[in-house]
Amino acid sequence: MATFSRLIRFLAKDGHVYYGDALLPSGITDIAKATQARVITGDVFGTHRVTDQIADVRMLLAPLARKDIRTVRCLGLNYEQHAKESNLPIPKFPVLFFKPVTAISGPTDDIPVAAIAQEAEGLDYECELVIVIGKEARNVSEAKALEYVLGYAVGNDVSHREWQIKRGGGQWGLGKGFDGWAPLGPGIVSSRIIRDPNALHIATKLNGETVQSSSTKDMIFGVAKTIAFLSQGTTLLPGDLIFTGTPQGVGMGRKPALWLKDGDQVEVSLEGVGSISNRVVFDKANPKL
Amino acid sequence: MATFSRLIRFLAKDGHVYYGDALLPSGITDIAKATQARVITGDVFGTHRVTDQIADVRMLLAPLARKDIRTVRCLGLNYEQHAKESNLPIPKFPVLFFKPVTAISGPTDDIPVAAIAQEAEGLDYECELVIVIGKEARNVSEAKALEYVLGYAVGNDVSHREWQIKRGGGQWGLGKGFDGWAPLGPGIVSSRIIRDPNALHIATKLNGETVQSSSTKDMIFGVAKTIAFLSQGTTLLPGDLIFTGTPQGVGMGRKPALWLKDGDQVEVSLEGVGSISNRVVFDKANPKL
Repeated sequence: MATFSRLIRFLAKDGHVYYGDALLPSGITDIAKATQARVITGDVFGTHRVTDQIADVRMLLAPLARKDIRTVRCLGLNYEQHAKESNLPIPKFPVLFFKPVTAISGPTDDIPVAAIAQEAEGLDYECELVIVIGKEARNVSEAKALEYVLGYAVGNDVSHREWQIKRGGGQWGLGKGFDGWAPLGPGIVSSRIIRDPNALHIATKLNGETVQSSSTKDMIFGVAKTIAFLSQGTTLLPGDLIFTGTPQGVGMGRKPALWLKDGDQVEVSLEGVGSISNRVVFDKANPKL
Repeated sequence: MATFSRLIRFLAKDGHVYYGDALLPSGITDIAKATQARVITGDVFGTHRVTDQIADVRMLLAPLARKDIRTVRCLGLNYEQHAKESNLPIPKFPVLFFKPVTAISGPTDDIPVAAIAQEAEGLDYECELVIVIGKEARNVSEAKALEYVLGYAVGNDVSHREWQIKRGGGQWGLGKGFDGWAPLGPGIVSSRIIRDPNALHIATKLNGETVQSSSTKDMIFGVAKTIAFLSQGTTLLPGDLIFTGTPQGVGMGRKPALWLKDGDQVEVSLEGVGSISNRVVFDKANPKL
């Protein structure tokens, strides 16, 4: 459907914010390295045009503007090895939870940690393949599911285990839904380019050291199966995002547990898409309500 | 902030869809009874005008257009008597989950039940006070929280207990998030009119018989406390909705359990706002994927 290969949203050197089709040097696939893009005009989910206007990238932004994002879905426990490190059984059905649109942030944005998430330990990282839905999907079959995908990005499903698991009454939304707790990027690679999303290397580096390293082939519910399942009785809209779960190696699964600290730098990367790197910043001014 | 008293969205007899300020006969507060409204132009969350143009209401629609709805939050177990009937402890913090925007439907729309939700018993109703956020709120105090409210509506948090509790891996989103499983309406009563949202009668009638009847004063976390809590580290946006939980009397809490059936008519009502009434319609054509 889309005419672009690698959709980015960026602040250009001319001071404007554009959607664009990233131009990458030959042999480079990490969109984070894009310094130029062809400007896209129109609706990236509908009628749009990749123009001949080349703009210089000053800074990559979240690859979709907030107004263009609808519902943010996430799967839990969707990698076999991660379910095992969590001491939980392999799910029989996809485990679905949500984040608010305000959780989405850009490839280099800070991850703000409010006072409520500083009261207890438990701040964790999760590298994830993110599906971007490109057109309305309801009751679609697994065989046709990939036709509804605009493309793929990488995201970090930042989580506070104390709020997610203990204080949230068993519901995960609160402990994963704070502002900026879903950095996304560096761009969206068209499903014309990534034909098989279920065989991509995915990884997290914490302060430069690899802490997660796996493949999306360890996913319990692959991309097509996930879309088909979630579309049952539910219309997936253009601009819906699906975070598809994280592999083993999260801080919670380690002995001793490895929690994110103020100032930590977390990079998540996905083969064929690239990497995003975000700094953990504890909010000092956050009032205790 | 808003200049209207009772915001509705409606199909008019002239064939157009408008936002409007409902005109009610003297002594009537149920917005469902509105037959005329003053047309509103502009952005209902920003610059808008209640005009002198009076339009005749043919049918009330969901009080916000889909594009004007951002994130749909819901609280679980937020009424003391309902927590007791569920045999669960009183939550120490609000229990937060989400619905997709596609769950929102209008005051007279059918509640479609897809094949996936017909495989097992467990279809249930939940009458709820719904908060509509009117302006950005982050880290707001309980004392100031109501200043961020556009108004209040009544909603039905339609739930499938088998998917919500047993097959959803403990996460409630899937079993509550199908298309049309959050009927909303009949309009949004301004917070200038409803000054105390924590003392309103709330009820459900199933095929004309009362099955829930309580007061929002049984809420564990009242409206202001809920907004202040949820705004910690999280920006609530104009167009965010908060379903605030349901009182006792749900089908799951009865002995024997009372599940909704194909053709059932469910009415939820809230004092000072009015009522919405939706028919349960089992989808016959829904393919099994």
